[in-house]
Amino acid sequence: MIVPRLIERKRDGGRLEVDEIRELVQAYAHDKVPEYQLAALLMAIYFKGLDRDEMDALMEAMLESGKKLDFSRLPLPRIDKHSTGGVGDKTSLILAPVIASLGVAVPMMSGRGLGHTGGTLDKLESIPGFRTALSLEEAQAQVARIGCAMLSQTDEIVPADRKLYALRDATATVEVIPLIASSIMSKKIAESLTGLVIDVKRGSGSFLPELDDEIELARAIIDLGSRHGCPVIALLTAMDRPLGEACGNALEVVEAIDVLRGGGPLDLIEVTLALGAEMLVLGAVATSREAAREMMHDAIASGRALAKLEEIVAAQGGDASVVRQPAKLPRARHETGYLAKRTGIVQRVDPRTIGYGIIALGGGRTTMEDTVDPSVGFVVSVKPGVKVESGHKLGTIHARNKEGLTTGASVLDDAILIGDSAVAALPLISHRVTARGVEVVDQGEP
Amino acid sequence: MIVPRLIERKRDGGRLEVDEIRELVQAYAHDKVPEYQLAALLMAIYFKGLDRDEMDALMEAMLESGKKLDFSRLPLPRIDKHSTGGVGDKTSLILAPVIASLGVAVPMMSGRGLGHTGGTLDKLESIPGFRTALSLEEAQAQVARIGCAMLSQTDEIVPADRKLYALRDATATVEVIPLIASSIMSKKIAESLTGLVIDVKRGSGSFLPELDDEIELARAIIDLGSRHGCPVIALLTAMDRPLGEACGNALEVVEAIDVLRGGGPLDLIEVTLALGAEMLVLGAVATSREAAREMMHDAIASGRALAKLEEIVAAQGGDASVVRQPAKLPRARHETGYLAKRTGIVQRVDPRTIGYGIIALGGGRTTMEDTVDPSVGFVVSVKPGVKVESGHKLGTIHARNKEGLTTGASVLDDAILIGDSAVAALPLISHRVTARGVEVVDQGEP
Repeated sequence: MIVPRLIERKRDGGRLEVDEIRELVQAYAHDKVPEYQLAALLMAIYFKGLDRDEMDALMEAMLESGKKLDFSRLPLPRIDKHSTGGVGDKTSLILAPVIASLGVAVPMMSGRGLGHTGGTLDKLESIPGFRTALSLEEAQAQVARIGCAMLSQTDEIVPADRKLYALRDATATVEVIPLIASSIMSKKIAESLTGLVIDVKRGSGSFLPELDDEIELARAIIDLGSRHGCPVIALLTAMDRPLGEACGNALEVVEAIDVLRGGGPLDLIEVTLALGAEMLVLGAVATSREAAREMMHDAIASGRALAKLEEIVAAQGGDASVVRQPAKLPRARHETGYLAKRTGIVQRVDPRTIGYGIIALGGGRTTMEDTVDPSVGFVVSVKPGVKVESGHKLGTIHARNKEGLTTGASVLDDAILIGDSAVAALPLISHRVTARGVEVVDQGEP
Repeated sequence: MIVPRLIERKRDGGRLEVDEIRELVQAYAHDKVPEYQLAALLMAIYFKGLDRDEMDALMEAMLESGKKLDFSRLPLPRIDKHSTGGVGDKTSLILAPVIASLGVAVPMMSGRGLGHTGGTLDKLESIPGFRTALSLEEAQAQVARIGCAMLSQTDEIVPADRKLYALRDATATVEVIPLIASSIMSKKIAESLTGLVIDVKRGSGSFLPELDDEIELARAIIDLGSRHGCPVIALLTAMDRPLGEACGNALEVVEAIDVLRGGGPLDLIEVTLALGAEMLVLGAVATSREAAREMMHDAIASGRALAKLEEIVAAQGGDASVVRQPAKLPRARHETGYLAKRTGIVQRVDPRTIGYGIIALGGGRTTMEDTVDPSVGFVVSVKPGVKVESGHKLGTIHARNKEGLTTGASVLDDAILIGDSAVAALPLISHRVTARGVEVVDQGEP
């Protein structure tokens, strides 16, 4: 294998053979191919793409670089939910306990904050003591025991993907559909799922702002799943504004607990239930999405979902008392309301600005080594299209110090635009993509 | 400077600022930017190009990474010749002594074999003892003393270019016009030239097989030269067949000496004289190209050019006696004629196949660490369009052992195609490009 020849072929629009991809990924995983050659190949792939066979081969090669979760003795369906990344998206924190409480196992491997987007692991780790770096054996045992484990990608699981992902992040080659699809699916196939629901984010706050790209990504993931025994359903949901109100790690845990207690913002509840309904139907414990929604309402109303979250937190070393007393979560020392500067209609609540704003407050990373302050962030209680009056409170800023409050206010000045015209926001859930095709859902705010 | 943002901007077709390029190249030269980020950027540049200002900035930044030759006390014009790389091209070995013998200084920095192409340094080093790794001070002193030094790019001269070139070679980003142009010109400006002649190769054996690309490259180089006080003239010459007959390091030195003694193949003589005429006119020692050709004929006929080669070889530690007794050069142990398999017209003598064939015989490198056997190679005495008869000798194979002879024969079987139709080869010299524009020369075989 002469790597520059492979790069050259891809650069010129040619195909890589299955064996070449396997050999290359294997060599890369064992540090036998320099990162710079992979980087050049990734950029060539950015421009020239990968076809279905190449994408398959890449995913399989990454999968072969590590181990899989072994659920051969577990009689339950195993369904995970994955999002392409957004701001304020705490659906995983709600869905994991809800779905696990309904007889579907949820082996959930999540990521950290990336760019402007938040990460489920960072949110979970705002719970004192919560440990996400589970070994495969620990995760398997925990899923068998309580139906759910929420873990990070360790060295055991598709290490080639992990290495490649870090390289993509450093070389501006993240936004490449076949690479995103094979990266996601390598981890999901390693979870030995019986089904997967994907939340593909749309709009200015998503990684792929074009609708065509999102549908293509959904199709690529569904395709990879179909060819590897893991049925996938994708929902395209709005990320032209944050999901829910809380944006920031501990603040989002509070909001998630709120939903598990029967409260919470309507948009968050709706997206969570829509994703959960797909999970329960895929897991064959509900015969329809309507029935599934009833089951989830019941799991929340009965307190079973909240109790399941306590179980999960306790199992992973966290302080489970925060589930009943969220005030025990890390709380920023400084907090102030953010008021409307004028009367009008909210034109925009920009998730990207808010996401980077959380980082500016110390609640995110600019390098993988940064430590995260879980307490800081924003609660933004308005959505595009809402009428507001000058001086009314639009949200709250949570900061470590007074400078943080000033920074936070200028972040919200940038993020929230008030004007006079009516606004066309994206439908909350716009499309449902399955192996059979694309349905337009076009569901607005609940 | 956040490098992934720069990569992203270039990837999306944007411009890099002069200061950004300078900072990036400086950081890279000091190992403060990882190679993989540069590799991704290079591939983005492959697809999106560099504009004139970016190319200027890149060249200047590379130049700033090292030192320049200092000829402030040398009253002579200083002219170099550079080729974009081919097979059988030994014009540098002839031009350096011829031009230096005519009162024009030739500080000539050359390269090694790359891909299928040969390198002047490898050819020179087939002369026992010849040392090309001169320090800047040695090179300056030698040029002042005997009018010529033939040196390799050391750590002192544009080290950033050297590093970047190795990276391009390993990442399939060699064939990028603005990168080629700025790489060549950074070294040439570092030579403190008063003029430069570029031999841009055309055809299947060149790095850029499309005519438009070659003219664009010539223009980019001329442009860079104009903006940095170094007038450049480019000739586009044929590389759809080897230049001359000898292909292989020591074999090419023998052929070059042959020309310096008044013999040699006509195509090689013609290209050499055409390039040399431009050098002498640029150096202002001849008032016309016709006059320049007369001067060169005289330098050869009088023996002054050959004596100058002896001086150069001696000055650089080589065994100068080989100049009068080329039989003392390394000679392959095995040698056999290659005969025409059928009667017909030579359709093709493919330089790329022959170039890679030399490597297969041990006369070139597949990695920069390989050692080169200077003795092996081919002499191919036919050109496309020539009529041959079955059984007639078309060339000679020079190999280390009997297996090499077999390998060599199959290389020539691939490289030399005999058919029945007439053939349209490229004109030996097709275009002349100057700051004023492109002239079609369209000069066929002499």
